[in-house]
Amino acid sequence: MKVWDNFLTDRDKLVFGSAGYDVKGGFGKRPAVLVVDVNYAFCGHIKEPILDSVQTWRNSCGEDAWEAIPYIQKLLGAAREQRVPIFYSTGIDRRSDGFDAGGWRRKNSRSGEKKGIPGFGGNEIVREIAPQSSDIVIEKLKPSPFHGTPLLGFLTDLGIDTLLICGTTTSGCVRASVIDAFSYNFNVGIVEECTFDRGQASHAINLFDMNAKYADVIKTEEAVSYLLQTEQGLHDHKIAFPADSSNVTV
Amino acid sequence: MKVWDNFLTDRDKLVFGSAGYDVKGGFGKRPAVLVVDVNYAFCGHIKEPILDSVQTWRNSCGEDAWEAIPYIQKLLGAAREQRVPIFYSTGIDRRSDGFDAGGWRRKNSRSGEKKGIPGFGGNEIVREIAPQSSDIVIEKLKPSPFHGTPLLGFLTDLGIDTLLICGTTTSGCVRASVIDAFSYNFNVGIVEECTFDRGQASHAINLFDMNAKYADVIKTEEAVSYLLQTEQGLHDHKIAFPADSSNVTV
Amino acid sequence: MKVWDNFLTDRDKLVFGSAGYDVKGGFGKRPAVLVVDVNYAFCGHIKEPILDSVQTWRNSCGEDAWEAIPYIQKLLGAAREQRVPIFYSTGIDRRSDGFDAGGWRRKNSRSGEKKGIPGFGGNEIVREIAPQSSDIVIEKLKPSPFHGTPLLGFLTDLGIDTLLICGTTTSGCVRASVIDAFSYNFNVGIVEECTFDRGQASHAINLFDMNAKYADVIKTEEAVSYLLQTEQGLHDHKIAFPADSSNVTV
Amino acid sequence: MKVWDNFLTDRDKLVFGSAGYDVKGGFGKRPAVLVVDVNYAFCGHIKEPILDSVQTWRNSCGEDAWEAIPYIQKLLGAAREQRVPIFYSTGIDRRSDGFDAGGWRRKNSRSGEKKGIPGFGGNEIVREIAPQSSDIVIEKLKPSPFHGTPLLGFLTDLGIDTLLICGTTTSGCVRASVIDAFSYNFNVGIVEECTFDRGQASHAINLFDMNAKYADVIKTEEAVSYLLQTEQGLHDHKIAFPADSSNVTV
Repeated sequence: MKVWDNFLTDRDKLVFGSAGYDVKGGFGKRPAVLVVDVNYAFCGHIKEPILDSVQTWRNSCGEDAWEAIPYIQKLLGAAREQRVPIFYSTGIDRRSDGFDAGGWRRKNSRSGEKKGIPGFGGNEIVREIAPQSSDIVIEKLKPSPFHGTPLLGFLTDLGIDTLLICGTTTSGCVRASVIDAFSYNFNVGIVEECTFDRGQASHAINLFDMNAKYADVIKTEEAVSYLLQTEQGLHDHKIAFPADSSNVTV
Repeated sequence: MKVWDNFLTDRDKLVFGSAGYDVKGGFGKRPAVLVVDVNYAFCGHIKEPILDSVQTWRNSCGEDAWEAIPYIQKLLGAAREQRVPIFYSTGIDRRSDGFDAGGWRRKNSRSGEKKGIPGFGGNEIVREIAPQSSDIVIEKLKPSPFHGTPLLGFLTDLGIDTLLICGTTTSGCVRASVIDAFSYNFNVGIVEECTFDRGQASHAINLFDMNAKYADVIKTEEAVSYLLQTEQGLHDHKIAFPADSSNVTV
Repeated sequence: MKVWDNFLTDRDKLVFGSAGYDVKGGFGKRPAVLVVDVNYAFCGHIKEPILDSVQTWRNSCGEDAWEAIPYIQKLLGAAREQRVPIFYSTGIDRRSDGFDAGGWRRKNSRSGEKKGIPGFGGNEIVREIAPQSSDIVIEKLKPSPFHGTPLLGFLTDLGIDTLLICGTTTSGCVRASVIDAFSYNFNVGIVEECTFDRGQASHAINLFDMNAKYADVIKTEEAVSYLLQTEQGLHDHKIAFPADSSNVTV
Repeated sequence: MKVWDNFLTDRDKLVFGSAGYDVKGGFGKRPAVLVVDVNYAFCGHIKEPILDSVQTWRNSCGEDAWEAIPYIQKLLGAAREQRVPIFYSTGIDRRSDGFDAGGWRRKNSRSGEKKGIPGFGGNEIVREIAPQSSDIVIEKLKPSPFHGTPLLGFLTDLGIDTLLICGTTTSGCVRASVIDAFSYNFNVGIVEECTFDRGQASHAINLFDMNAKYADVIKTEEAVSYLLQTEQGLHDHKIAFPADSSNVTV
């Protein structure tokens, strides 16, 4: 039973059964991990029900975010053990005149709102999965971490062939990341329990869409197994990994 | 009542009601129209139920495609009357070794299939809305017509500030087009009756997602009214429009 | 007499005389100014002969940089008077492991060098032309300020049709900027006295190449006249210009 | 003695001697070859002096083009023997209204000219080095074959880490290719005898600039040796190379 089964119509199930979609794409030998926008703006500063959380953090995904974080820790633990490059994306604090918000200004009535909680930056990656010195944080203005950033050049420099993507929101920045990664011909995995959204239908259907066409939706356990069987230390000559990064307690 | 209301959960309705989404973004003064992938591969060569159509055309959206076409004609009629630039996208016939398919090869069991019907090219735009000499057809390999194509440069050359997007699939190439157009800060409209998908849930939820964050989902009638009140002939010095394009019967 | 005349061969003069190059491209109605990499790394911290300056600042252009700065001030003065958007580009301080240097690491024997002078950041824009709050500073890793940055989206958001480019080096980041701006179909001007290089032949020939094919090389005086006759305040609804920016003494 | 030595000033030689430029960047293990714009528009249809050739073909590089072609044949011969992917770029025949010419329209007084010789397409790759079925021809509107084309996605799909670039013009499309390839962090070689320009100073100085900063300018012999020691058939599972492509007489 997939998370999307409850949302598909009967016709949908028949059509997608016969159109050849939903084949496993598979992965390559040189993976990287991309954690999209798991910051306080999208998680809230504490685990609380989404309807409470959005009062303070308008983009919050509430409890679902905090349920994903232990899974993200597991995924990152395996990546660190192998010294697989880890990319995070997050937003950029906006100018006071809002110039750099571009189209975002137009589509949200709370867009200029400055709420939050002192001590927690909206664009700060949640501390439970805080980036380490070897990680690369991509600051972005638009949904996709590929758009207007150096991400693609970093991936070509490292010869990455596979991206394991997770984070939030499934229907927003994760979706945009997956389309771009697929379009540049990377093998793409979406790690299901590590990925979340503020919308339940959007979460389910976007996973369905991406699994049908662009990426393999996999469980954390499968992602970890895959990472652990790749060659260790492929990028040691380019990235200075901390001596003991796999044992770091955060 | 919106097409997506049946697919949202109760929590979804509460969350999106309070998070400030779903504001109308509005349009500018220099629009263009983008018709995404309305070719025989995605429509089938005749109007028939989708489950029949996909036997021959694995990507077909069946009847829903053919119901959209008269609306697309109306939209294009208004654009032609104003001499607003019209862009179409469609696929490229693949090499026999499939090299240029890239990631598509991995994700569909019927990807190499050569079916179709003699006389109807899979990448041929449906004749009922055939491009005219002044239109620009963008051939592409990936979901977004911006990816790996000259589309963006054409839009900057013309000083376009608004894209009215329609076509198929809502959850695939239309979605990718909208994300890219939004990311480059164009005002974006999605013309609802002119847009279709093979999946019912995917159609509804992707419209919902895009309307919440990136674009205004509008009716054809509204799009036509908007186009008709823009200044006529803004691009006459750059594009040779046919003398009587608005009256062309196709 | 042009700066490049001394460097061309006789054959060059005949070929370019008959091949139709070197037509004036002209400008549009919505300009922006782009000042490329006029930071301490490329200027040195004081005006001194280039052969002295490069001992401390390996990328320095020496005296030629400091001769350009009063011209850049004039150019920026006119832009501020009209409230024309001003973009600066500069580098990003590298990670200690050099990962983000990418290809730069390979091509310079002094690439990892940390010299400079305390109190002057290599990537700090020279104070004589320091950015104001309304200006947009593009931080970049590669020659072109379009590459891996949000610059293009900002230009489309503002409906810019013309870029006046200056700074350094003519044969490096200015050249890369001009090619990209041309490729996106912007009208491009290069403001001659505001543009400099560490190489004399490279400066002359790159101006020649760009003037022949991609851009109009113009004098500062011409750029100022052009800016002053454009409409004032076109972007006041998007950018909060300081009340008295044209009178700021820096 | 380098081709650029005659064009540099004495100061240039001193500055570049001390600034750390001109280090050999080196190559990787997964090369591809890119032949830029070696078509009849840039070569003319026969070997004749450039001043004659430009009467018919306004972009022609004359005799220098035809002197390069036997070297390009050698380079391609080695690539074919190893089944290294070969990319060509060339232009696209323009619309009759010139819309797709964009900025090119503005900068050349002979831009709309339709001259040429019956039987020789301006955008046709010169027959002596005609593409084979396994080669990939990139059609482009702008100087760089990366701009508005699928080239980058093809390179990431194949895991290419090194581009050997040649063709024409050194100061135009080759230069733009090299900047983009460098910016995406590929190792870049420019094969000197396979590369040409209509301008003598531009050819020399652009090679100098690129060798100093972005690429290794190498002789054909060195490129061939490098190719022959790479692993054969790395891409046989993705590209259907002709059985005997290395022996093809063209």
